[in-house]
Amino acid sequence: MPIPQVKALTFDVFGTVVDWRGSIIKEGEVFSRSHHIQADWAAFADRWRAGYAPSMNEVRTGTLPWMTIDQLHRRVLDRLLEEFKITGLTEADKEHLNRIWHRLHPWPDSVDGLTRLKKKYIVATLSNGNVALLTNMAKFGGLPWDVILSAELAKHYKPDPEAYLTAASLLGLRPWEVMMVAAHKNDLHAAAKTGMRTAFVERPLEFGPDRKVDVSREESIDVHGKDFVDLAHQLGT
Amino acid sequence: MPIPQVKALTFDVFGTVVDWRGSIIKEGEVFSRSHHIQADWAAFADRWRAGYAPSMNEVRTGTLPWMTIDQLHRRVLDRLLEEFKITGLTEADKEHLNRIWHRLHPWPDSVDGLTRLKKKYIVATLSNGNVALLTNMAKFGGLPWDVILSAELAKHYKPDPEAYLTAASLLGLRPWEVMMVAAHKNDLHAAAKTGMRTAFVERPLEFGPDRKVDVSREESIDVHGKDFVDLAHQLGT
Repeated sequence: MPIPQVKALTFDVFGTVVDWRGSIIKEGEVFSRSHHIQADWAAFADRWRAGYAPSMNEVRTGTLPWMTIDQLHRRVLDRLLEEFKITGLTEADKEHLNRIWHRLHPWPDSVDGLTRLKKKYIVATLSNGNVALLTNMAKFGGLPWDVILSAELAKHYKPDPEAYLTAASLLGLRPWEVMMVAAHKNDLHAAAKTGMRTAFVERPLEFGPDRKVDVSREESIDVHGKDFVDLAHQLGT
Repeated sequence: MPIPQVKALTFDVFGTVVDWRGSIIKEGEVFSRSHHIQADWAAFADRWRAGYAPSMNEVRTGTLPWMTIDQLHRRVLDRLLEEFKITGLTEADKEHLNRIWHRLHPWPDSVDGLTRLKKKYIVATLSNGNVALLTNMAKFGGLPWDVILSAELAKHYKPDPEAYLTAASLLGLRPWEVMMVAAHKNDLHAAAKTGMRTAFVERPLEFGPDRKVDVSREESIDVHGKDFVDLAHQLGT
């Protein structure tokens, strides 16, 4: 059942639209071969993803000044290269690795689902990723966004309310005319507190085949989709 | 001859990508018929467009606080309705009229040219129009932007340097990796001062058939295109 007031859908990106873990593992293995290094890229991906949240919280609490996700990813990358004893890389190699996050692959249903949803709704990113990262990723993966919105434009990372409210304001909409779509319930809970509508999408493989993910239905969330095509169907597109 | 460093093209929109004058006249005439009013919509369009520059300059100089183009358009509209003695409109009518600027038609070559340019470059708006206006206009006219950038994101209107520099920064690029595209030389001169590359596109009919427009070639501008398809050709796409 479509919700009549909703005019725009804002999407979390890492994990919800793209498979960051699978993409990092795949690129990492190519990098291993071309640079004659060995690394457990699944562990590397998990540590990289886990590492950025504490830095982001330091920005959120004011311990660190505003830094983009590109900059936060690089801080974590430099630590991980030491930890994983990957040595001998040039600055260009490190930048290439850091920009894996600009080249993440969409989940198989993402492009199809977004293309359907775009017929009826404004489809926008609303990610902690910076605008350049999201723009490059969209070109890489063929993601048909109408507009790239980011926590960078509010200089407040999700789940700060400013991130959601700035997005609605830039769209010229009131929060309840915007639906946040994410595979992470904490993102949806924070969006709902600002007045936004919410849609959960199941991404059971985000953290790999061995980690269990909470994909249970929850009363307070407006829509629960198996994937983006199911979401499009439920929202009448 | 493509310029190798250039990775993104940022486009002025009103007059460069879309025909604001022709679109306002056409919608105005439909509005006249449905609301049983008479007005010279060509004169109305010209006065509306001319009226927003002084208000924008009041924002630029700090006499007015930050206001979006939607808000500035509305201030001018309210004055013009009195001046043209158009009475009896509801608030919804006025908002509908004000949002004509969200429904401007592209010039005939715009979508084709942008689609070609997008294969090789990031194509972005860089307009004084607000993000919501540009997003709605893109959906209305099928403009295939990779990313919507706006003076609104800098809270500085063009030709302030902050408008151009914020766009380059959000793209993660240095100014000389970005080319400003416009039918207005003052916009290009201001962009060039920040280090951007520049492309002029001829739009001889922007102000209607009776007003002469300067479409002369100028040494200091990097590329001079007859239209967007010619620009795409010259930039190697």
